[in-house]
Amino acid sequence: MSQYEYETDGAEIYRRSFATIRAEAALGDLPPDVAQVAVRMIHACGMTDLVADLGWSEGVVKAARTALQQGAPIFCDAAMVAAGVTRRRLPKDNEVVCTLSDPSVPQRAADLGTTRSAAALDLWVDRLEGSVVAVGNAPTALFRLLELIRDGAPKPAAVLGIPVGFIGAAESKEALAANDLGLEYLVVRGRRGGSAITAAAINAIASEEE
Amino acid sequence: MSQYEYETDGAEIYRRSFATIRAEAALGDLPPDVAQVAVRMIHACGMTDLVADLGWSEGVVKAARTALQQGAPIFCDAAMVAAGVTRRRLPKDNEVVCTLSDPSVPQRAADLGTTRSAAALDLWVDRLEGSVVAVGNAPTALFRLLELIRDGAPKPAAVLGIPVGFIGAAESKEALAANDLGLEYLVVRGRRGGSAITAAAINAIASEEE
Repeated sequence: MSQYEYETDGAEIYRRSFATIRAEAALGDLPPDVAQVAVRMIHACGMTDLVADLGWSEGVVKAARTALQQGAPIFCDAAMVAAGVTRRRLPKDNEVVCTLSDPSVPQRAADLGTTRSAAALDLWVDRLEGSVVAVGNAPTALFRLLELIRDGAPKPAAVLGIPVGFIGAAESKEALAANDLGLEYLVVRGRRGGSAITAAAINAIASEEE
Repeated sequence: MSQYEYETDGAEIYRRSFATIRAEAALGDLPPDVAQVAVRMIHACGMTDLVADLGWSEGVVKAARTALQQGAPIFCDAAMVAAGVTRRRLPKDNEVVCTLSDPSVPQRAADLGTTRSAAALDLWVDRLEGSVVAVGNAPTALFRLLELIRDGAPKPAAVLGIPVGFIGAAESKEALAANDLGLEYLVVRGRRGGSAITAAAINAIASEEE
């Protein structure tokens, strides 16, 4: 009946997608738990060479997964990241928080002389301890997170730092990867990144199910 | 006060980002209106070489922009695409519709023997005429749109076909680009695509403001 020949079985599409990724991507260069997360990140962007830009701390996947299993909230810098988190994968119906549209944020940004994305982090600080942070859009948010923690804010269990773009993105991710704050981290070095890749990383950490 | 040196002025970050893109991307290969859209698409993914994969019909930007100016709804295959549309850029407070989570969709998908993403299009058909369609995730949704229109469903004013991935994505975009249905289209050929790039295209079409 269809004029086009294509796979319509969702489970089969996933299976074949992940098989293609495992066949093509250099996953052997990664620790097994990072490789499992990388598969979903690659799935979200269509680029198997993303592996070459990954950076991670040894315990990041375990730390983030354990935090989620203990009910930790997920703090996202952008609504698109939050929208991309698949709620049924979350082990404890974890709260997914994005404060960017909070009415207080524009004034906070003006007072601080920074972006709204960075100012929105003020509203995370009280609950940052042991949380999972997912920055998928704004380099300024990632820089500010590092500043806040350096200045004494509580430490998240893990930070996914995957902002995208041309001004500050690469630098913010290098700063996270070079942190001497003891932060567990996962980054995509360079300009690439974004909400889809970031949400995919969260989804992979939340559940090992493919 | 900051331990890190980085730009914190949001307007300046945008200005410098777009300047970098205009300096590095081969925008001269594109019609001016497609180039304006491409700048935002590149901004959303960090990849200036996206230009090489763009495909378009001559009137797509004008058709989509005119439709939005006339109040057309935007139909999105994924919640992340809808979440990425910047509401204040829309000329007529246009409705942004994603029907994927409609309670009827799982049963429709089972009845049709297809994915939920494809089945969700059933709920667009009555309002498809003159609309703007933004497929940023599921190849099956794009294939199904082409099937529905071939079978007599009303025609959107323009179709942004930018699904991502390894199984069917490239093929679905080639099918859209090769359509003989008179559909105005914009595609990113190959595996790349996704919700962020797709929402960025909508945002660029909605307003020429940078």
